[in-house]
Amino acid sequence: MSQRLYVKIREEDNVAIAVRDIRAGTQAVEGIAANQDIPQAHKIALCDIPAGGEIIRYGVVLGYAIHDIRKGDWINEHMLDLPESPSVDDMEFGTNLVKNEDLPMPVRTTWMGYKNAEGPAGTRNLLGIVTTVQCAAGVLKVAVERIRKELLPKYPNVDGVVVVTHPYGCGVAINAPLAYIPIRAITNVIRHPNFGGQIMVVGLGCEKLTYDRVLPKEDITPENVLTLQDYGGHDAMMNAIMEMAEKKLKKLNERKREELPLSDLLIGMQCGGSDAFSGVSANPSAGYAADMLVRGGATVMFSEVTEVRDGVHMLAARCADAHTRDRLAEEMKWYDKYLADGGVGRDANPTPGNKQGGLANIVEKAMGSIAKSGTSQIVEVLSPAEKPTKHGLIYAATPASDIVCGPSQVASGIGLQVFMTGRGTPYGLDISPVIKVCSRNEMKNHWFDLIDISAGDVATGERTIADVGREIFDMILDVASGIREPYSDKYGFHNDMCFFNPAPIT
Amino acid sequence: MSQRLYVKIREEDNVAIAVRDIRAGTQAVEGIAANQDIPQAHKIALCDIPAGGEIIRYGVVLGYAIHDIRKGDWINEHMLDLPESPSVDDMEFGTNLVKNEDLPMPVRTTWMGYKNAEGPAGTRNLLGIVTTVQCAAGVLKVAVERIRKELLPKYPNVDGVVVVTHPYGCGVAINAPLAYIPIRAITNVIRHPNFGGQIMVVGLGCEKLTYDRVLPKEDITPENVLTLQDYGGHDAMMNAIMEMAEKKLKKLNERKREELPLSDLLIGMQCGGSDAFSGVSANPSAGYAADMLVRGGATVMFSEVTEVRDGVHMLAARCADAHTRDRLAEEMKWYDKYLADGGVGRDANPTPGNKQGGLANIVEKAMGSIAKSGTSQIVEVLSPAEKPTKHGLIYAATPASDIVCGPSQVASGIGLQVFMTGRGTPYGLDISPVIKVCSRNEMKNHWFDLIDISAGDVATGERTIADVGREIFDMILDVASGIREPYSDKYGFHNDMCFFNPAPIT
Repeated sequence: MSQRLYVKIREEDNVAIAVRDIRAGTQAVEGIAANQDIPQAHKIALCDIPAGGEIIRYGVVLGYAIHDIRKGDWINEHMLDLPESPSVDDMEFGTNLVKNEDLPMPVRTTWMGYKNAEGPAGTRNLLGIVTTVQCAAGVLKVAVERIRKELLPKYPNVDGVVVVTHPYGCGVAINAPLAYIPIRAITNVIRHPNFGGQIMVVGLGCEKLTYDRVLPKEDITPENVLTLQDYGGHDAMMNAIMEMAEKKLKKLNERKREELPLSDLLIGMQCGGSDAFSGVSANPSAGYAADMLVRGGATVMFSEVTEVRDGVHMLAARCADAHTRDRLAEEMKWYDKYLADGGVGRDANPTPGNKQGGLANIVEKAMGSIAKSGTSQIVEVLSPAEKPTKHGLIYAATPASDIVCGPSQVASGIGLQVFMTGRGTPYGLDISPVIKVCSRNEMKNHWFDLIDISAGDVATGERTIADVGREIFDMILDVASGIREPYSDKYGFHNDMCFFNPAPIT
Repeated sequence: MSQRLYVKIREEDNVAIAVRDIRAGTQAVEGIAANQDIPQAHKIALCDIPAGGEIIRYGVVLGYAIHDIRKGDWINEHMLDLPESPSVDDMEFGTNLVKNEDLPMPVRTTWMGYKNAEGPAGTRNLLGIVTTVQCAAGVLKVAVERIRKELLPKYPNVDGVVVVTHPYGCGVAINAPLAYIPIRAITNVIRHPNFGGQIMVVGLGCEKLTYDRVLPKEDITPENVLTLQDYGGHDAMMNAIMEMAEKKLKKLNERKREELPLSDLLIGMQCGGSDAFSGVSANPSAGYAADMLVRGGATVMFSEVTEVRDGVHMLAARCADAHTRDRLAEEMKWYDKYLADGGVGRDANPTPGNKQGGLANIVEKAMGSIAKSGTSQIVEVLSPAEKPTKHGLIYAATPASDIVCGPSQVASGIGLQVFMTGRGTPYGLDISPVIKVCSRNEMKNHWFDLIDISAGDVATGERTIADVGREIFDMILDVASGIREPYSDKYGFHNDMCFFNPAPIT
């Protein structure tokens, strides 16, 4: 199959994206020669654009030309001014509502999961030990190694042991107006679907984050919480941890996977290290898989405030009611203020790697980022680390930072994350498996055993978005069912649980 | 030796501290019976105090009685109003300057350390791998286990391998006004004295925290930096890390300990999980050791803004010049604003454990906290993670949070930390060994193999501050010299490197 040279998304676009590196003087687009060397994934002007003129991709104004741009020119991030951020007041809603029956039909309707008493089912059967304070982290990191070595082999139905450590819990302003954000994350991660309702919370004993802030009264029992200061010396402390862990492992070992409908599945979508292809290949393919899941009754979460901020009106159009639109606006305003309070604007995103990857600014990045949400209606908008209350497509307003968005979605209960990347990242999570999808085949060739799926054939025109979308959908169900293991789990590449804490420390 | 029942610090104090639990009706202080059960470390009224009257400990007003208090009453944290925070404008300086020759004489004047080309000497000989971004953390955590197992045994002069992971590096507002704080921490930790000048920095390749932000141009070489995205697949990446690590280990293996003057030693003092004895026993004893070190030419750092804020005028009195006083005021104001911006005040400290330990409020906590600085002149005031430029006593204005103060002091280059605790914490650091000193013998009995030194005999009157101070001083030099191993290192209880980031994430 012949590969195309460029990708133009919408008819009205006056730029296209180079599918490969293009040498100056060679043909970039039919009838247009490149005026300069144009790196793969970067933009080429399809017509002359005068200074001040609109630069259009995805049918959206990415920015305004700073100087005159000639047809065939390479357009890089230094050549356009950022447009004003769209207002979030009085956004139109309900103008782009795709009906459920118009979404692509899922090719499979069940998966094998660990059913929970309430909420989504587990994709893994893990002993999850959650610390209430960083002071306990050193002990628990040592203890978890012992549990893995000495106890886990005796309980073959348990997939692993995870300890959640974090910088929170003490030395923080526990009553600060924004303290509820990290506290909610810790509260909700204790109940992660992959922990099967077995609570094991370890505290020090003098911290500010007391058990009653993260557990209801009836769960604060000697079966569920362990306070290091209650134990006399190293051995007593370790023995107590091992004993509690073994009791929990016994219970977890009784769990079995069973065939479940898609409505028992909650997954997250994220992208990171994006390039200009992310919005062409990987993200729309993931969006296609998201649409299939939503049609099948699953819950799909997408996030990253600063990466949707400039396309938020497109999300509002997919909200069925004013309340959901208002919640969306509220979350955008919260983040606008949060950034302004810190003395920065939305241009703090993108990264140098994004720019090398052809993303000129946050508008272009946002258009690509939103593509991973597919086309379905947005049924609910959540604050960071909140749990969904509905099935369908959920917008969870987390930071865009990969390493903070992931833990936020985990706290919201995702059983699996699909992570799209252009530049490549070894990112992984220990609580929820991560499937990595790259935007270009070059990336997959380079990181053949680190990236799970390449959507690069979409960029080259060799496969369709639906083709790759179905591949992603299949892998989601396989990984969720424990049939396949993504590379990050194979190698144990797991990032730290970096919970979002916008409140001050003391 | 008979144990005393109570501790009264200054003649003018109208409260004393119960050395043990005192039952209602029994004698608490000569001629005074306890009106209620008084828990160990809590305050007893030595006279009637009318509503609105001053409650005085350390010769300082801790607060004002909310209701009438009778002689013999237990005074808890609900019984006093917090006084106004002292103003930091125009603080008097130079009014309490202890001459170097009036400080206690060190009983040893040399130690065995790893000399560095510049700055303080190392107390350990470590391979330090520093990541520029959290995205690399998963890979490096796996790699460091392999290095420890496969390479380290071949290099017996190397004490260990440490990987510094952190939530910073990308998904952050890299140009935010306050971004310099986490960036400085990462920059300075690369040069930690215990890493012996061997630079090994690992990045992903598309992050915002580019190498030039943490390394001078001449150090950005293939010998020193490794970019994960440059390597094709898992094995290539791992092999590259192992190869670079081995080259560094070879060089580090040539290092030997040598006899060095105290002026080559930089240590940090911190306290956490404090109780009302911390300021009576553990902290003054550590302060005595600090005085001996300073007299001997060493550099001693103490920190924790919110825990000195209410005694800052006492620190100003120990500044020799207006500049140092002004820097102190500047740091206090910075933190006042930081907390106010987050919607909290200084009463966000202390913790529930502090209060159970008898500390009524932040004024009382501050008086105890400052005691660990000893009595010497403050020669320099630093911002978080800055490196000292002078010898002597340094105030480094870090957060008071144990888990953030520690990494800040590590970034400032401490080779060892002395950590005083009342309630007990298993806290430890992997880059710099931590000696833990507790304030009560009950704590040492309870955590006999987790706490290194008890200062409890000072509380009971069985030993003097100088006695325990010399014991701490000795252990500092032994641990710094690699002769003794503190408990946290014996068990590998090491906290995460929680660097302070007051800037927003994106």
